[in-house]
Amino acid sequence: MDSIRRSSVLIILPQPFISEGIKAQTQPVVATVVGVCVGGVVGGGNPSVRPTVGEAWPRPQMSLINTTYLIIRPDTFKFTTGSHTCDILDKAVERYMDIIFSSASSRTYTNQPWTKMETFSGYLDEVNVNLLAPCETHPYHDMDEHYQIKIDAPDSPGEGSIIAQSIWGILRGLETFSQILVPDGSAFRINSTQIMDYPRFGHRGLMVDTSRHFLPVAMLKETLDLMAMNKFNVFHWHLVDDQSFPYVSSAFPNLSKLGAYTNRFVYTADAVADVVEYARLRGIRVLPEFDTPGHTQSWGPGQPGLLTPCYKNSTPDGTYGPIDPVNDDNYEFLKQLFTEITTERFNDHYVHLGGDEVNFDCWKSNPTITAYMEEHNITGDYSKLEEVYITKLLDLVAALPNKNGYLVWQEVFDNGVNIADDTIVHVWKDENVPVAYKQELKKVTAAGYRTILSSCWYLNYISYGVDWYKYYECDPQDFDGTDEQKKLVLGGEACVWGEYVDRTNLISRTWPRACVVGEKLWSASEHTGNTSKATPRLEEQRCRLLGRGYNVEPLWPSYCEDDIN
Amino acid sequence: MDSIRRSSVLIILPQPFISEGIKAQTQPVVATVVGVCVGGVVGGGNPSVRPTVGEAWPRPQMSLINTTYLIIRPDTFKFTTGSHTCDILDKAVERYMDIIFSSASSRTYTNQPWTKMETFSGYLDEVNVNLLAPCETHPYHDMDEHYQIKIDAPDSPGEGSIIAQSIWGILRGLETFSQILVPDGSAFRINSTQIMDYPRFGHRGLMVDTSRHFLPVAMLKETLDLMAMNKFNVFHWHLVDDQSFPYVSSAFPNLSKLGAYTNRFVYTADAVADVVEYARLRGIRVLPEFDTPGHTQSWGPGQPGLLTPCYKNSTPDGTYGPIDPVNDDNYEFLKQLFTEITTERFNDHYVHLGGDEVNFDCWKSNPTITAYMEEHNITGDYSKLEEVYITKLLDLVAALPNKNGYLVWQEVFDNGVNIADDTIVHVWKDENVPVAYKQELKKVTAAGYRTILSSCWYLNYISYGVDWYKYYECDPQDFDGTDEQKKLVLGGEACVWGEYVDRTNLISRTWPRACVVGEKLWSASEHTGNTSKATPRLEEQRCRLLGRGYNVEPLWPSYCEDDIN
Repeated sequence: MDSIRRSSVLIILPQPFISEGIKAQTQPVVATVVGVCVGGVVGGGNPSVRPTVGEAWPRPQMSLINTTYLIIRPDTFKFTTGSHTCDILDKAVERYMDIIFSSASSRTYTNQPWTKMETFSGYLDEVNVNLLAPCETHPYHDMDEHYQIKIDAPDSPGEGSIIAQSIWGILRGLETFSQILVPDGSAFRINSTQIMDYPRFGHRGLMVDTSRHFLPVAMLKETLDLMAMNKFNVFHWHLVDDQSFPYVSSAFPNLSKLGAYTNRFVYTADAVADVVEYARLRGIRVLPEFDTPGHTQSWGPGQPGLLTPCYKNSTPDGTYGPIDPVNDDNYEFLKQLFTEITTERFNDHYVHLGGDEVNFDCWKSNPTITAYMEEHNITGDYSKLEEVYITKLLDLVAALPNKNGYLVWQEVFDNGVNIADDTIVHVWKDENVPVAYKQELKKVTAAGYRTILSSCWYLNYISYGVDWYKYYECDPQDFDGTDEQKKLVLGGEACVWGEYVDRTNLISRTWPRACVVGEKLWSASEHTGNTSKATPRLEEQRCRLLGRGYNVEPLWPSYCEDDIN
Repeated sequence: MDSIRRSSVLIILPQPFISEGIKAQTQPVVATVVGVCVGGVVGGGNPSVRPTVGEAWPRPQMSLINTTYLIIRPDTFKFTTGSHTCDILDKAVERYMDIIFSSASSRTYTNQPWTKMETFSGYLDEVNVNLLAPCETHPYHDMDEHYQIKIDAPDSPGEGSIIAQSIWGILRGLETFSQILVPDGSAFRINSTQIMDYPRFGHRGLMVDTSRHFLPVAMLKETLDLMAMNKFNVFHWHLVDDQSFPYVSSAFPNLSKLGAYTNRFVYTADAVADVVEYARLRGIRVLPEFDTPGHTQSWGPGQPGLLTPCYKNSTPDGTYGPIDPVNDDNYEFLKQLFTEITTERFNDHYVHLGGDEVNFDCWKSNPTITAYMEEHNITGDYSKLEEVYITKLLDLVAALPNKNGYLVWQEVFDNGVNIADDTIVHVWKDENVPVAYKQELKKVTAAGYRTILSSCWYLNYISYGVDWYKYYECDPQDFDGTDEQKKLVLGGEACVWGEYVDRTNLISRTWPRACVVGEKLWSASEHTGNTSKATPRLEEQRCRLLGRGYNVEPLWPSYCEDDIN
């Protein structure tokens, strides 16, 4: 116990990443890695990585950490709220009390007293959750997520508060607060700390696919929990695709009745409402995607006439292609469906319209389509035909009761479709070719469109070994463009396509790899460039999430002190 | 319902794999894939694969299946036993009653009556579990695993029995019986069936690594459950390695005290006994591995003098290399440790001694070792030094109280160490170079040694997409050698090294990919050559294991009818 630090030097961030330094100086106890000291001799095996203790993930923009510390006693601690409160805030406080003190967490309080040192500065029995303006009710793009944490600050010694102008900032602050507590015997330690924090990007998403495999609502909720714990704010729900149509439409019940895998593997109106509400309480938008005109095989049985009949030797061969763009009834169908989606089920301003990977073979085989194209002087130009469809769809969506905005996959832009100025172009291609997706970002933003990046964050692509460096090294603003162009980058999304992912491995495959994307999108670029500095912090985040009861997989040979055995 | 098959043609196997035909003819109900018929219209989405119904995995050697069928009613069904019984048998019967009728299974009996057709042949209220000789108490290499299943056979119409000369065959037969039952409303159907079955190889192993990450005993038990359900019979327990030493030795308690990750992440004598007993009841041998002289970093702190001190500039630099082969005390230590292992903890005749990947750098730096080598005229030949160590170790193990046999990794053979005739050489190198491991199998068997293969079955190596074809296409006897040489191939082992695997993903990463190896090692080679034939059967096995409550991951876009939602 001779290496206890007693200096009270302040660490002021931002500055070049100093994780090691922080580790040494912010922890008043010697055992940065608990378990190293066994009977006075070195032990604890040889893990590849030892975690930091009490560092937040993603890394806050600005932290001031003193070595003096307060003690939080589970029996006496409480959050208080100010004049502004609401259901989101009340439930969040309740949730974080649970996350910190009881929860599914494997942490067990020991009988050991907490460590009392010279730098002990008192008890922290109360943290004031101070929302400075009335609650907003629904998260939205570019909502304010700033917050401040003050623990034993010079202007309020011995006190603790989480302060924000918006409920969304409060939610982010509560998460950070829960992370900087350090278990110590029967209590928690917290250093005297000031944090000023806000996100680098406004759109920090995770895309989940519920078509290739159905995912129970319980798994979507676990995903939302983990998103909140990594400060994601957009749950991009790729609801339907070729394989199955689990969305239950009131207007068109046959879509799921005939397109879902089974009548149990569906999302009813209640289930959708449940997910949207669960996300709202965590400050997470739900961005529904109904991808057309391709990726729609499962729509076919429930809506005759929707898909293009494919022909072989001048007769229909019983198979179907993309949505039939020359059947006018289909636009009425889409209008009704998207009206339901945007007014009855989801409340985000945006909807994702897909538009990727349209295969032209079936259109080419169909005589009605050929005739239409001749009539409209676009014979042979199937991209133009796709444009006819997409243009009608976009106009139709823009004219919906809520005047919704939309996102589209990059092909819609690439194919030269005339898209509205406020369209967000979702760049996804060329996972392993940075030069290509950087070029795409350049082109999209040069055309004045806003964009989000996913190319480098396809988490469903797995490989052996440590594979997250590449996620950490990808930066959505790292392309050749003007400042004006860079500002059009709203953020990005990690994607977990569902071909090989279902309830059995959704959590372990997505996390903690998605944490890496979460930090990249939240934290300052100058502090997210170094994987070796991030490594012990990521290990702590992994152990934290595991301790909270989530099945997040390991990143290298190591162990989590509090894990179950 | 117009396609119901009423013919009673017998399908006689073996013959060229006829999965499709079996599927059509053995199922008396129309819906091979339940859920396809929704409201009279095609539905059920577009999964990549639809499972077979009621086929056993791994595929039995010989089956005779009639389209007549019996009905099993959960309320009245029971197993009866013959004159020979024992705790293994009694517990197995209890276990399979649970697996079939209650269990964690997501199967729920419906209110629907079962399907009565012309081929209904009566009720099966009793299956006689007929062990023809007294129980053996412990599984061992080359134990007899033959069994026979007769359901409504010509010589005993309306009756059912599982018959074997050994308890091990009975266990395998119970598993097969549980798999060929098909849920049907409030009951199960079973076709009139005769099965004669036995394994192709005697050694069908799964290696699990509990050093890189600790695995709770509960996860080892789940693994043993799944092994039994895929007819594996060797649990190769790679207990310790560089990273941690979770094995608690009574003789040398400091090994785990100072070498385990934490004092909770250990296998006490009771825990080991628990695992060994759990495996025994399932007819699975536990093959412990204590890998030396390399891969021993975690042994060091608990046994000073064991590891070679490495030198830099003529002084010890504080790091350590492999076990010090010139310190005679070490052989006494190893003798005591292996005595404990083989007499007090494990009871298999075999122990795995490792011997892989010995790094010579530290030995090269150490002056005591250099002096020893000069003295023994082996200066510069570190393979010879390794041989000195291995030879002493092997002699020591062969002289243990139980005269144990041993397995070694292939390097021991490659390096020309003089090994006992009954050594089993474990071929593991060159995962992606079949020509290399085939050459190794040829050399090992040409030298007269018995061998097992793992090179092609390293399940910890993951990649995107469908990756099991290569496991199915690998055959341990497919090398250039005589019949005599082929007979020296005892089987193989799937390996799950633990660098990126812990309790969160052990099951989902290992299964169902290990099922593929299970079938390859059990079933006849002429019926395990075609991945597309195996595909719907593997899908059924995956759904079966999922339905039994195990977190086995998906193999392609699809769904399991009875899965939870």
